[in-house]
Amino acid sequence: MLLNYRLILKIIAVVLVIFGLSMIVPIIICIYYEESTIAFLIPSIVLIGSGSLILYTNKPRSFDLKIRDGFLIVALCWITASIFGSLPFMISGVIPNFIDAFFESSSGFTTTGATILSDVESLPKGILFWRSFTHWLGGMGILLLAIALLPSLGISGQRLVDAEASGPYIDKFTSKMSDSAKLLYFMYIGMTIAETVLLMMGGLSFFDSIIHTFGTVSTGGFSNYNNSIAHFNSTYVELVICFFMIMAGTNFNLYFIALGSKLKNIFRDGEYRAYLTLILVVTIIFTIQLLYFESENSFVESLRHSFFQTVSILTTTGFITKDFNIWPAASKSIIFILMFIGGCSSSASGSVKVVRVLVLLKLIIRGVYKRLHPTAVVPVKLNKKNIPSDSVSSITSFLFLYISLFLISTLIVCLDQVDLMTAASAAAACLGNIGPGFENVGPESCYGIFSTPIKLYLSFLMIAGRLEIFTLLLLLTPKFWNPDR
Amino acid sequence: MLLNYRLILKIIAVVLVIFGLSMIVPIIICIYYEESTIAFLIPSIVLIGSGSLILYTNKPRSFDLKIRDGFLIVALCWITASIFGSLPFMISGVIPNFIDAFFESSSGFTTTGATILSDVESLPKGILFWRSFTHWLGGMGILLLAIALLPSLGISGQRLVDAEASGPYIDKFTSKMSDSAKLLYFMYIGMTIAETVLLMMGGLSFFDSIIHTFGTVSTGGFSNYNNSIAHFNSTYVELVICFFMIMAGTNFNLYFIALGSKLKNIFRDGEYRAYLTLILVVTIIFTIQLLYFESENSFVESLRHSFFQTVSILTTTGFITKDFNIWPAASKSIIFILMFIGGCSSSASGSVKVVRVLVLLKLIIRGVYKRLHPTAVVPVKLNKKNIPSDSVSSITSFLFLYISLFLISTLIVCLDQVDLMTAASAAAACLGNIGPGFENVGPESCYGIFSTPIKLYLSFLMIAGRLEIFTLLLLLTPKFWNPDR
Repeated sequence: MLLNYRLILKIIAVVLVIFGLSMIVPIIICIYYEESTIAFLIPSIVLIGSGSLILYTNKPRSFDLKIRDGFLIVALCWITASIFGSLPFMISGVIPNFIDAFFESSSGFTTTGATILSDVESLPKGILFWRSFTHWLGGMGILLLAIALLPSLGISGQRLVDAEASGPYIDKFTSKMSDSAKLLYFMYIGMTIAETVLLMMGGLSFFDSIIHTFGTVSTGGFSNYNNSIAHFNSTYVELVICFFMIMAGTNFNLYFIALGSKLKNIFRDGEYRAYLTLILVVTIIFTIQLLYFESENSFVESLRHSFFQTVSILTTTGFITKDFNIWPAASKSIIFILMFIGGCSSSASGSVKVVRVLVLLKLIIRGVYKRLHPTAVVPVKLNKKNIPSDSVSSITSFLFLYISLFLISTLIVCLDQVDLMTAASAAAACLGNIGPGFENVGPESCYGIFSTPIKLYLSFLMIAGRLEIFTLLLLLTPKFWNPDR
Repeated sequence: MLLNYRLILKIIAVVLVIFGLSMIVPIIICIYYEESTIAFLIPSIVLIGSGSLILYTNKPRSFDLKIRDGFLIVALCWITASIFGSLPFMISGVIPNFIDAFFESSSGFTTTGATILSDVESLPKGILFWRSFTHWLGGMGILLLAIALLPSLGISGQRLVDAEASGPYIDKFTSKMSDSAKLLYFMYIGMTIAETVLLMMGGLSFFDSIIHTFGTVSTGGFSNYNNSIAHFNSTYVELVICFFMIMAGTNFNLYFIALGSKLKNIFRDGEYRAYLTLILVVTIIFTIQLLYFESENSFVESLRHSFFQTVSILTTTGFITKDFNIWPAASKSIIFILMFIGGCSSSASGSVKVVRVLVLLKLIIRGVYKRLHPTAVVPVKLNKKNIPSDSVSSITSFLFLYISLFLISTLIVCLDQVDLMTAASAAAACLGNIGPGFENVGPESCYGIFSTPIKLYLSFLMIAGRLEIFTLLLLLTPKFWNPDR
């Protein structure tokens, strides 16, 4: 069966128009700060114009969408957004090279937060706002995808509790979607307002507050200061940001449960409990290590930086209060492991997600048990329910794919003659949508060191990671384009 | 049910006696080279004496062995061998510290080849012989375990073709075992003689030949020269060693097939084809990289070192002809990946084994396919046969366990304040029974840098890796000791 290209084009055209309209926000910012609006005005007109033209001329014959169409739409959304999102960078002359601008834009929309800019403080306010606004849009996009769109597409990877696939057709998704989507907007915008207000109460300007709020609620990590959150040197600001990073890394379905019933019900979720426990345990380990290995730190200072960096890396945000690249190797190896965990499923965070790591651990325990009792049938349980074996094998193949792609990407980045730690952490940080890595891509450095082909590769790696790899990988298989072959 | 401790003790006693008898070989070497025999004479008498005493006084009431007994015996064999194998090092005064001697002995018996000795050329011949002889004994032991013992224990992880578990009782293993075991001795001793003769034909002394043969056929990697195989600087010697490393990394069951039918039948095995293809492809990639990044090399030199190091690392031997620690990062990352593959199942090599990596790749492909066809039932095939889902899940849990143990071990090694690359490669090289890693444990360095607790940990990691983790891990579970709880 052919893909429904006309309908796909129509949906992409709608996205273009929305995208063009969203550029009105940075235009307002530019006007307020008396900067040139041209970098946003041109793309905005082009996007709205071309989108409307397509909507006007292209009439789909059928409104049936199949899984394959869905995958293509999702992948095209992120790629289109990243391409057009790079225009303001290029037109303003901040990043004249397209690949560099595409990297920055992809990093924004995928909520990664990796940057090729070594000095962001010199940039115009409008561009800084746009950079962080792409995070916010991307975070919203991924939540819509994970909570409203993917489940209607029958993709059970993220939602284990009701893992029943709803069949290959998704024409009925709109009704299901609008309910979840409305609640989602409410939550996401509510979090954005709350954090902005709280940060302003901490003495930050409105501009600084909104920039860091965008970076927090999307688990992105772009800052308008070169040394990120360390610039403020305020425990209050760090605690506020930590609170919202934890919220952004939480399964948003839990908020719906909390709204519908009692707040404490969300603690019944095994993944959420594991997520909070992990933050607690790793914070304690870091604190001990920093006290032991770097004796100049006080207990409170160690605890403060440990807590912030644990939350920042685990939620795949990537904000920095301390250069963890100079931390002891034991702490660095834990940070590396955290990069491969990420926050909860159906959250704004990237990487593997806590639930998949939980299933992995349960599979190991089952493996040990089955060595002693080879004939026993042992189901894998989560939240006291058996996980269907199809979901388990889907998680297994995802984990293997994730590890394989990490290894291959490390190898590819190595071709730039960087050291292995730089390459491995750049690959892990881009694939997991985290941002900072170690050594030459550490908290004090930027991704500008890489060659153009590697920057292009890392941009696609960020998009692949954001779309849980399969969505982008499928497009590379011949079977996707010609299923009857 | 209680473990059959009396029978277990009896079997261990037999192992002690065999072990004591095996020390007669280094005694002969000592006499030939006019060295003191005391370092072997004392342990030999102690082992034979205590073993005989146990055999004489301890009478098992029942001869039933259950899976749990089997696991305990196997684990005890390697631990006992490593403990008593350290005696000659200590008595001779070469390695006075017990933990250091235990590390060297474990490294020998697990065919790892990691050493804490920075200068081996100054050692007495008898000790050098013993060091390599532990490789040979360990290699024989692991082949016996993989080919004759484990299948009778019903552990299907290694043999996928006939994955039927033979039930919890292994009393009938002796008849099955003796057939396979006889063929195995024949092959292993045949390979040993053939390689020794071929190396002597290349101008090596008998002593040098036998030492490197022991290191080759067991995939161990100890040498009596500080710069390993690079000492000889002979393409002939390297080719002979490569040939036998490849043989040692091959599934020994294939040799039985080859003996029984036609030689070409062994190429029908998917794992064997993948193993040879991998060697070919990686050699080509290394050759290109060395020519491109290190332009001083000629094509022939690049090919020569690429081939040797590919085979040496993939088969988990760890012989060195070139310091790959100073190779470009891209090559280093490939070597790191090779460390996690290893040779074929039922071979002398360590690490994960090619067949499991094949299954991993097939699971990824199935995962991609199932995203497009969520309801399709797709079996995982190998050698045109479906792999039972139990075997697939056993492989999956093994792979996850392997990766988890690698990560935890990296973290533990990091506590010694070494850099992350040293820690990660030391963990990978010990767990995979390879030997050399990168940076401070690279080809030019040794494991002497680590503290006593880390050396002890790495010794157990080598044993865990050699016994495919589960065997040793099981002993740490309370359920193993008290299954009725």
